[in-house]
Amino acid sequence: MTSPPLNRHGPESLHQQLTSRLRAEAERLGEGASIPSELDLVETHGISRTTVRRAIDTLVEEGVLVRRHGRGTFVATPRLGHTLDRVGAFVETFLAHGLEPESEVLSFQWKTDPAELPPELGADSTASLFLERLYRIEGEPRAFAYVYIPEPFGASISRADIEQHPSFQVIQERSGIMVHHARVTVCSRAANERTAQILDLPPGSPLLVLYRWIYTDDDKLLQYSGHYLPSEHFELTLEPELSEPHDVSYAFPLASSMLRLARRDPA
Amino acid sequence: MTSPPLNRHGPESLHQQLTSRLRAEAERLGEGASIPSELDLVETHGISRTTVRRAIDTLVEEGVLVRRHGRGTFVATPRLGHTLDRVGAFVETFLAHGLEPESEVLSFQWKTDPAELPPELGADSTASLFLERLYRIEGEPRAFAYVYIPEPFGASISRADIEQHPSFQVIQERSGIMVHHARVTVCSRAANERTAQILDLPPGSPLLVLYRWIYTDDDKLLQYSGHYLPSEHFELTLEPELSEPHDVSYAFPLASSMLRLARRDPA
Repeated sequence: MTSPPLNRHGPESLHQQLTSRLRAEAERLGEGASIPSELDLVETHGISRTTVRRAIDTLVEEGVLVRRHGRGTFVATPRLGHTLDRVGAFVETFLAHGLEPESEVLSFQWKTDPAELPPELGADSTASLFLERLYRIEGEPRAFAYVYIPEPFGASISRADIEQHPSFQVIQERSGIMVHHARVTVCSRAANERTAQILDLPPGSPLLVLYRWIYTDDDKLLQYSGHYLPSEHFELTLEPELSEPHDVSYAFPLASSMLRLARRDPA
Repeated sequence: MTSPPLNRHGPESLHQQLTSRLRAEAERLGEGASIPSELDLVETHGISRTTVRRAIDTLVEEGVLVRRHGRGTFVATPRLGHTLDRVGAFVETFLAHGLEPESEVLSFQWKTDPAELPPELGADSTASLFLERLYRIEGEPRAFAYVYIPEPFGASISRADIEQHPSFQVIQERSGIMVHHARVTVCSRAANERTAQILDLPPGSPLLVLYRWIYTDDDKLLQYSGHYLPSEHFELTLEPELSEPHDVSYAFPLASSMLRLARRDPA
């Protein structure tokens, strides 16, 4: 960062100037490169730690930089886009980006006690095969998934099947039944201790969680799964169809006694 | 929580027993009710704080309980499902759940400096109208959104329009052009200080972030928006169509020197 000093009297705030410089620097350094520490930036530019932190926050928000717990701040690698338009094996998201992940099966067991079966399997849920898979790229954890496969479909599946192939593929091959339709729910969660440990993230890190139910043509549940995706590595994409021109007419109710927030510079 | 003591010698772990009891208690108490503090539960059941925390973690994960910073742990209210199947005004998500949110316009300004326009507007981005809206239900912040409306479409829009109606509606009415197609990206982010303050959340809270681009039939950008949705209040839902039976064939590469994680009880 040997560049002219920041301009304290220009039209751009110090925060904006530092943000622009760091953005350019990140582009120059390239993916995965280390960025000077907050303290280094404070000293180099003679500005407050608050300003430095705000500039880094902005670029973390934008996905340009990423903070790694106890290791510093780095230029982010582009996020993998998982399409929601098509239902397939999760591994296809990696393949679409030219990546072939390693898989580690962390659990493979039958859950037979109704108290152990999650309500997401439905009220008439039977014993289910339960498995957990960790996806790694070059040894680094990238995604963690659990899958429930109800009894009739799980019965013919071996641990070796799951170690070698995606469950989406195995279920169809072993049962001879094709996936017919699906339901997807997406939410955001803070990583709990175990998930954080498995994904090598600080506990509390934001995760995208993708729940998916896939069904046979007669509406039998073939698989219920949850995928925990670190926010720095994944985004979900969708091109929804507008079947017909869509209009809406709504008037916001007038707020009677609304607490006004102080308006602050959004930049 | 006046119930028989936990069974230290039964088949279920203390953590599982406490989780079941708290789940039943949450159902009995109903939405929004307060749950005894961790220390109360430690004393009542004579168990470790780690066990108590783990049980609460499990139920927070499940969406049964929610922790409120400095206030305690409460029975969660059901999340609002925002459908990704259809493109419309964001306010329709609330309406679909019988809620009529109040709106506060936090910003309404023109951004003309190319350095201030986000790259998401595209390389040929022009001056844009920029606005920010906070949605409240019964005075409580629920969602925070920003919207960019490029010059030709933003020019005829007034602050009063935006204060009274959804931008999705205003843009179409003022320009006479209907939305034709859209692109959506979803990711998860930790709330930065400003967003956390606006949404009345602890900084670092997980947010679901919904980016949306909507276009005219000749591919002109009508609007680019970002919606920040607190994870405890929202989930996204989708029923993707399977146009044809879908098969996949993949074999995971064998991991040569893979660090085995200690296998732990996933319950």
